Amino acid sequence: MSPENAPPAPSRPTIGRGEKVRAAVLTAALAELDDIGYAALTMDGVAQRAGVHKTTVYRRWKDRDALILDALTGRIAGDIPIPDTGDLDGDLRALARGLAAWLGSPAGAAVLAVMLSDAARAPGIAEVRAGIFADRLRRAEPVVVRAVERGELPAGIDPAEVIKNLAAPLYFRALITGEPVDERAADRAARAVLAAARHGGLGGDQD
Amino acid sequence: MSPENAPPAPSRPTIGRGEKVRAAVLTAALAELDDIGYAALTMDGVAQRAGVHKTTVYRRWKDRDALILDALTGRIAGDIPIPDTGDLDGDLRALARGLAAWLGSPAGAAVLAVMLSDAARAPGIAEVRAGIFADRLRRAEPVVVRAVERGELPAGIDPAEVIKNLAAPLYFRALITGEPVDERAADRAARAVLAAARHGGLGGDQD
Repeated sequence: MSPENAPPAPSRPTIGRGEKVRAAVLTAALAELDDIGYAALTMDGVAQRAGVHKTTVYRRWKDRDALILDALTGRIAGDIPIPDTGDLDGDLRALARGLAAWLGSPAGAAVLAVMLSDAARAPGIAEVRAGIFADRLRRAEPVVVRAVERGELPAGIDPAEVIKNLAAPLYFRALITGEPVDERAADRAARAVLAAARHGGLGGDQD
Repeated sequence: MSPENAPPAPSRPTIGRGEKVRAAVLTAALAELDDIGYAALTMDGVAQRAGVHKTTVYRRWKDRDALILDALTGRIAGDIPIPDTGDLDGDLRALARGLAAWLGSPAGAAVLAVMLSDAARAPGIAEVRAGIFADRLRRAEPVVVRAVERGELPAGIDPAEVIKNLAAPLYFRALITGEPVDERAADRAARAVLAAARHGGLGGDQD
């Protein structure tokens, strides 16, 4: 009776059944997260929602945190658009506003909750977290590279430092001071990092 | 002369017994935190170590997180010295290095663990956390005020923004990217915030 005893032959040869199951489970995990939150989410609940047997879920993800992180990674990548407005000021503002909107959204709150929960201090999860954010920072770096190409910034600038210094004050508000993470905060972050980048404050290690 | 029904003059005009018990419990909580860590700490263990009855502890602190936060608040205040080197560059570097050293220390790790644990998402704890950091930021602001008085920074600068933008990249490393929080990171943070502050990037809301 159980699926793993008698796997049916795939009826549609388009995308593999494995990929479809994976997508269904990740979508169900996100929906569960939105509906009942991080603390209440279970592997069984996700399996039920996705319409797959729970062993299918356990075979692919070792525990709920691994599943949640996988689901959120995909969501993060799509949630913050990388702007190309034609000038650095506009790009940094758009990037910061996108991040601020995400940090203030249920999805953003869920990601932070998972990332910084007690469970997230396990070494495996910490590495996944670092990997997710590294990927996200890398995706935004072209904003800085294009500004250098346009002559808006000195060539010695460190793109990763610019993006990290843009994001840091917004995370600091969300996680430490509890101040609102809104468009005003985003614009302040953009202005500060723009001034620092133009005036030699983000040029990598010079000393 | 005091009236005859007045309470007897204290034999030692130093600190009351209540304050002594409080100090003993907070010291014991910090020692327990260092010895066995956040997860293993119990109210009973702290009471035993302080040499007081556990009801004494429960009467003053409603649970372990309240006790730990109280203990750590005192420790934070004393742990990061506020420099006065005579110029802003030196002060910002010293401040950032002090914060970096603290974030990398067992005490700093313990504070962050408590502040961002699942328990810390309870509303009461979140407020205490915001209050602790607000106090800490306020204590560092004279560094910026003195720089304005010396003519190193424009008068319209927002001291709180300067200090927050100095701290943010170091917390970002500790909490998000997992990169080392060392003197090099501190010096980069100081350089970035110095450039931003000098060139109009941290002047409060101008737009």
